[in-house]
Amino acid sequence: MIDKLIEDIQKKRNPSVVGLDPTLQMMPDYLLEEYTEEYGKTAEAAARLFTEFNKRIIDAVRDIVPAVKPQIAMYEKFGLQGLEAYDETCRYASDAGLTVIGDIKRGDISSTAAAYAAHLGGAEIRGNRIDTWCEDAVTVNPYLGTDGIAPFTDECKRRGKGVFILVRTSNPSSSELQELELADGRKLYEAVADLTIEWGRGCMGRYGYSEAGAVVGATHREQGEALRARMPHCFFLVPGYGAQGGSAEDVAGFFDKDGLGAVISSSRGITAAYQKSEKYSDRDFAEAAAEAAAAMRDALRKAL
Amino acid sequence: MIDKLIEDIQKKRNPSVVGLDPTLQMMPDYLLEEYTEEYGKTAEAAARLFTEFNKRIIDAVRDIVPAVKPQIAMYEKFGLQGLEAYDETCRYASDAGLTVIGDIKRGDISSTAAAYAAHLGGAEIRGNRIDTWCEDAVTVNPYLGTDGIAPFTDECKRRGKGVFILVRTSNPSSSELQELELADGRKLYEAVADLTIEWGRGCMGRYGYSEAGAVVGATHREQGEALRARMPHCFFLVPGYGAQGGSAEDVAGFFDKDGLGAVISSSRGITAAYQKSEKYSDRDFAEAAAEAAAAMRDALRKAL
Repeated sequence: MIDKLIEDIQKKRNPSVVGLDPTLQMMPDYLLEEYTEEYGKTAEAAARLFTEFNKRIIDAVRDIVPAVKPQIAMYEKFGLQGLEAYDETCRYASDAGLTVIGDIKRGDISSTAAAYAAHLGGAEIRGNRIDTWCEDAVTVNPYLGTDGIAPFTDECKRRGKGVFILVRTSNPSSSELQELELADGRKLYEAVADLTIEWGRGCMGRYGYSEAGAVVGATHREQGEALRARMPHCFFLVPGYGAQGGSAEDVAGFFDKDGLGAVISSSRGITAAYQKSEKYSDRDFAEAAAEAAAAMRDALRKAL
Repeated sequence: MIDKLIEDIQKKRNPSVVGLDPTLQMMPDYLLEEYTEEYGKTAEAAARLFTEFNKRIIDAVRDIVPAVKPQIAMYEKFGLQGLEAYDETCRYASDAGLTVIGDIKRGDISSTAAAYAAHLGGAEIRGNRIDTWCEDAVTVNPYLGTDGIAPFTDECKRRGKGVFILVRTSNPSSSELQELELADGRKLYEAVADLTIEWGRGCMGRYGYSEAGAVVGATHREQGEALRARMPHCFFLVPGYGAQGGSAEDVAGFFDKDGLGAVISSSRGITAAYQKSEKYSDRDFAEAAAEAAAAMRDALRKAL
């Protein structure tokens, strides 16, 4: 995952990723009406609509960004049919050549974590391997320690997949636990960062970055800069840009001296851009997304 | 959730829950052959087999235990079809009158956590509410703090659902983070316990226990006893019994003086009991599960 991601970041000169986190509020009215008319006010309507919306967003941004990050919760909300839309979105983005980072934040004990690792490694039944999901990388929660992470890093080693461990999240109440001060002087998120460094040792890519990266929120500028120095071989997946308040200047210090080391994620700021501008109607949502993605790319280029 | 669970624990005189964590290794050979012959070596075969297996286990234990705990990872491993088996299992158990605790360990930031809370509260499309999932309670990861938990406790307040927050998990490497010593002298899991107490304040049931409980592993006997005293209004969901090493004596101190305050979960120890006994053939897996569930109940009764 990591080598291709880095190469595509360099090719497109764009270290950003579009979050595909659809909500009904984000859907253009004309499409919402069309789908609820055809499928009723059902989970199927939401799921089919999300798929259609995402495909058009992917078509619009595929030449601009190197990666997408679908947030599985938004699909899981609509049950099995919603998850079908998640899977179809992943496969469509993958076919478009984009790196697919599944924002699934799973985390469990060893044998169970191994089951979740099917997101990267698939399943097997009587010797037959099945790709039950199709992400290139996923996000994972560290609270259960090494044996919850190892099944994922195993797939990094075995199949060149990637994983991003939650180190410092972007949300307001993230400090309640993540900033707790430890007896040894570190903050909890720093302890998680140090574990993440260990977890990433066995799966280093050819550009000096490990397949095991870290989630570090754009809303923590100084901490992100300090983590950049602390974890020189760890790529950052950075949420919290745009709608959550992080700017290109805020995240400039999350990169290394070569302008690598991080991908910045924006969701609503790109996919719902049409709702923020007089210039666009409902029907132009994909064009508006492409323009917003290009603007974000240019802002990041300038800040780096 | 919590009041019904307590009443059913008292009615059945059994504070235990059967974990429904199917693996192919756990399936009786004759069924595995039957399903792979009919559906090929596919995810569909695994999913249909899991559903059949679970239904027969549920039929066998429904009069013995008050609740079941399907572990969603085991189903998610087999993709969309696997998740269909998860959902069907939940609905079947619910129809059998059992409390369904979805072991989903989700955790994310506010708007995303709200999407996951559909497991308890369903989704809405143009004013139409849909029950997209059907658990009575779910497990949740605390690493993101209050705004990752609030959407779940909101459903506890609104719809009488339940949530169990990961405080101290049963796995070997859980200590790496959970036992870190904080500057104020607490361990990290104690800080999570203290937050869990806060999170549970607004949704107290009529027997003195909150809808917001805690996951506390059977493998940490002294810690579990200390947490029992620290969190008198917090019900414990206790994994790690049986196959992971916890005994009835180990968990006796997880209960209050009335024998309430905890449900002990066993998975393989019940559902794969037929593999451990000469007495049973493959075809008697459900009877073996019923016997193991009754034996666990009796061991807990004796220890309390």
